[in-house]
Order: sequence, then C-alpha cells, then structure tokens
Amino acid sequence: MSERDWIHRYIRPLVRAEGADDLRDDVAELSTFSSTIATMDTLVEGQHFLSSDPLNTVGQKLVRVNVSDIHAKGAVPKEALLSIAWPKGRGEAEFADLMAGIAIDLREFGIDLIGGDTVSTDGPLVLTLSLTGQCLGDGPVRRAAQAPDGASLWLSGPIGGGAIGLRAAIEGGLESDLQRYRCPPTTKVMHAQAVAEAGLAAIDVSDGLLLDALSLAEINGRGVHINLERVWLYRATSDLPLIMEQATGGDDYQILMIAKDGVKIDPEAFLQIGHIKSKPGLTLSFHDEPIPLPHKLGFEHQA
Amino acid sequence: MSERDWIHRYIRPLVRAEGADDLRDDVAELSTFSSTIATMDTLVEGQHFLSSDPLNTVGQKLVRVNVSDIHAKGAVPKEALLSIAWPKGRGEAEFADLMAGIAIDLREFGIDLIGGDTVSTDGPLVLTLSLTGQCLGDGPVRRAAQAPDGASLWLSGPIGGGAIGLRAAIEGGLESDLQRYRCPPTTKVMHAQAVAEAGLAAIDVSDGLLLDALSLAEINGRGVHINLERVWLYRATSDLPLIMEQATGGDDYQILMIAKDGVKIDPEAFLQIGHIKSKPGLTLSFHDEPIPLPHKLGFEHQA
Repeated sequence: MSERDWIHRYIRPLVRAEGADDLRDDVAELSTFSSTIATMDTLVEGQHFLSSDPLNTVGQKLVRVNVSDIHAKGAVPKEALLSIAWPKGRGEAEFADLMAGIAIDLREFGIDLIGGDTVSTDGPLVLTLSLTGQCLGDGPVRRAAQAPDGASLWLSGPIGGGAIGLRAAIEGGLESDLQRYRCPPTTKVMHAQAVAEAGLAAIDVSDGLLLDALSLAEINGRGVHINLERVWLYRATSDLPLIMEQATGGDDYQILMIAKDGVKIDPEAFLQIGHIKSKPGLTLSFHDEPIPLPHKLGFEHQA
Repeated sequence: MSERDWIHRYIRPLVRAEGADDLRDDVAELSTFSSTIATMDTLVEGQHFLSSDPLNTVGQKLVRVNVSDIHAKGAVPKEALLSIAWPKGRGEAEFADLMAGIAIDLREFGIDLIGGDTVSTDGPLVLTLSLTGQCLGDGPVRRAAQAPDGASLWLSGPIGGGAIGLRAAIEGGLESDLQRYRCPPTTKVMHAQAVAEAGLAAIDVSDGLLLDALSLAEINGRGVHINLERVWLYRATSDLPLIMEQATGGDDYQILMIAKDGVKIDPEAFLQIGHIKSKPGLTLSFHDEPIPLPHKLGFEHQA
C-alpha cells in the first residue's frame, strides 16, 4: 500500500470544501453554525460487516450509521473526517471500491469530506467516520428530556430489515434482503426536520427496537408501551415470532422519537407506535392483547 | 468485554463538557469559535506502537499526535472524539490503563472528551482520536502559503528522540530513551501562540525533519536549506551519521515553521535552522560545509 498515491487517487477527488485546504494539511477548518454537533462510529470487519461483503456497500454503511445519528438529533450532516486502517493483504481495486461507496453516500447526504488518516494494519479492516451536523432547531434533540406520562412514541421507518438481511447474508436468502443488510436505507432530511420541530427526545434505532425504546424510556425516568400491530415492519406479518425477530434485531438506522404534546407530525416521516408511561419497564400489546416480553430485547454490546 | 460497563467505568468519568450530555447520546454538541479546526489520527498496534508498549503511554501518544497537529496550526486543542477497536483477548485492567493515560493527557492539554465509539475486534488494537482546536489568530496557519525566497525556517524543539527511542524499545537501551519513544514530549501553548503570531506556513514534524522540511518547501513551490549545526537534536552530537539518523527519524511531534518577515519570534519557543530558497529541492550544510543528502530523507508511508 502506498498511502500517498491512494489518498491522491481516491480520497482527494472527494474533497471539495474550502476548509479542507485540498487535504494538504493535517487539519481542516470546520464550518461553524449556531449549533454544531459531532458523532463518531467505527465499523470493524468481522464484527459490523462480513469479510465477504462488497466494500462499496461497507463504505455506504459507514456513512449511513453516522448520518442516522445526526438525523435523530434533528440535524443535517455537514462535514466528515475519515480514518481507514487498511489490511496489508487487500489490494488497490478494493480500496477504490470502498471509496466509491463512500463517495456515493457523501454526495447523497450532502457531506463534505474534510480530512482524516489512512494507515496500514496486519488485522481486519477498521473504518472510523466522524461527522458534524447542523441543528435545524435551537440545538440537538436529546435522549433525555423528562418526557411526561402519556407522551406519544413515534418511529421513522421500517425495522427488522437488518436482522432479516443479516440472516440472508449468512444462511443465503433473497437478493433484496441481502442488499438491505449491506446498504441499509436510512432516514432523510424530512425526518430530521420532523425531529427538530416535534421531538422532545429521540434516539436512533440500532440495537433493536424494543431495547432502544426501553433505553429511551429509562433515560427519561419512565416506562414505555408499544402497540406491536402499529410497528412498521420490513417484512409485514402477523406471525408473532417473526414480529419479535424484527423488533429485536439490530442495524436498522431508523429514529424513535418521543413527541412534544400538541405538535403536528408529518405523517410521511413518522408513525405513532406507542406511548410513554409512568411505571418503569416495557410492555407490549398486539391488537389490545397483552404480549409477554421476549427473552432478548435486542443486541447487547458484549463480545 | 462489556462495552456498556467499561464505558461507564473508565470513559464517562473523563467527560465533563456540557455538550457531551454525559455520553447519554450518540452525538455531542461542539463548542464553536470564530475559527474551529479539526484533525484525526489513528494508531494501530504493531504499526505505530509495539504490542509490548504499556497502554497508558499508548494513550498519551494518541493524544499527543493529535495535539501537535493542532498546535502546528497556531491553535489550541478543545474537544475530542475517541474510537477504540478493542482486541477480544485483552482484559479490563489493560483498558483501565489505556484510559488512565488518555485521562492524564486530556487534563494536561485542557481537552474535553465529548464522545466516540467503543467496539470489539479480532485483530490488533486500533485507536482513533479526532480533535477540534480553536485558532489563536484569524484562522489556521496552513502548510501552503507561497513563502518568499529567503524566508526563515524555524523548529520548535529537539528532534531525533523518536528514532533513538524506537531503537531502544526494539534493541534494548536507556530507560530514558525508551520513555521518550513511548510518551513523546510535545509542543505547548507557547508554540501555538508563536505560530499564530509569526507563522506564514507550518507543519508538524512526524515523518522526519528532512522529509517534512522538503514537503513544506515543495507545497510552497520553493526549495529549502538547513544548517545542520543549528538543528536541536535529542542526542547532541557532531557525528554526522548520528545527526542524520535523528534528522530522518519519525515520530517527533515538533513544529517546523516558515516565519513572516520582520515578526519577532519567542526564542523560548522556536530556533532558526535554515531558510527557504527559490531553487527547488533540499540542501544541507554543517558549519558552512555542504553536506550530501542521505539516501532516505524520512519515513515514507509504504507498507
């Protein structure tokens, strides 16, 4: 790997922001707004994607996991710093493929790449993206906001595609499911706008809907009820085990929002799926029937 | 590895900035200034540090490589995002040790940790730090500035300790040399202040003094002459091979600056070691005797 050549060939063409000074420097000048936020996510080969995954979709996933974090706070993404720890055995064509995927999504989401670091490793591919965002409201919509009893709970899009797609990638399955796992659809500016206008508290769904809903409720000192028949599923079904698989799978990159009282919410952007309650814990129902909790609520970060 | 426990135990206590919202969220709110810059550096086990290096000094090195990038632009570091890809075989005591080293240097340099990501890996330890900085002048002092013929070239501190220290770490040697490699002394606020006041163009020395000086000259469309007897060496010597080892070794984290004409420079902060010339290329002298260039000018990024 010749770091300088590859940076020149694949990374520099993506860099257009004035603050990046054509990548001739170690630092970039950030655009500053009244309220700027930042996030960072890391993807590791063998942990967050499979060694057999095409690298262009891995590049897109890297951008999308960060974009959903920014959208979930009622903000739009602006500038990115990219770190690549590149395995010595992988060749230039694969590097080009990775950067092509990243390029597509930088353009898709209007993000300026402004800098980063590219190094070699004897281990698996490790990718880190740090992303800044400009808040559409006065500041980021936080997870913790002392949400009141009865506040409504909203979901931005279908969940469960991550789990079903991963199963297809490992066991074989529909090409459309596989594609859903490799390059997850994510939220759009209209979702960020709705969060900025109506969100009291919000979180991106990444560890499973049930687990993330409980986390969101707990951090607000509350409990939460979900009406399962209202949840937008990747694979529409009334089969409870298949509903549970989708409601507890990870990697969905949608937004879960507790809404302010009395604010109209764009029905294109969000769907009401439950409400906040004063009693701690998570409860579920399906067409008014109480449903017991599954053994696992989502993906716990254990290794 | 239990990501949530470890974050709670070792990372969260370091987080004090209001914008970090106690790490309860995926994003942090950045402090914004008239001119904010950002940088990102990655350290990989086996590439940038040895598997046998104590992790507290690896943590300090991670902070310092980023701090020197910020200081070199005439700015002071402000906020950090930290990504840790943690090898599954390493235990909690080592994680605590890494974070202890990071904590010492965050305090030393007045940096607020505001967020990041902690994940598992089957490979070597990979650490990425992204750092923002506040410019002390109107904006960052860039590498490229069309420096005029005859402009003076300045160095912020001793170089060569990285190379001699690495040799001590691999072959055995003085404990002080070993410590220099593990936890390199870096620049201070007075250096950033001097760059902001007097710097026309500046770069941090990380790939070897001679190579970095040539890069700095080339990006300004110029050549450069260095008076080797004026260069501040980690190991003071008049032995040319030992001078060359130090002037071409990497990992020094000092600043090389081309000064504006007629601006007084703090003699505590910088030492003049040469000048910019119109003819391209690097020339060397030692007490007015021309010295041929060594075969290698520094560490080229090849793997």
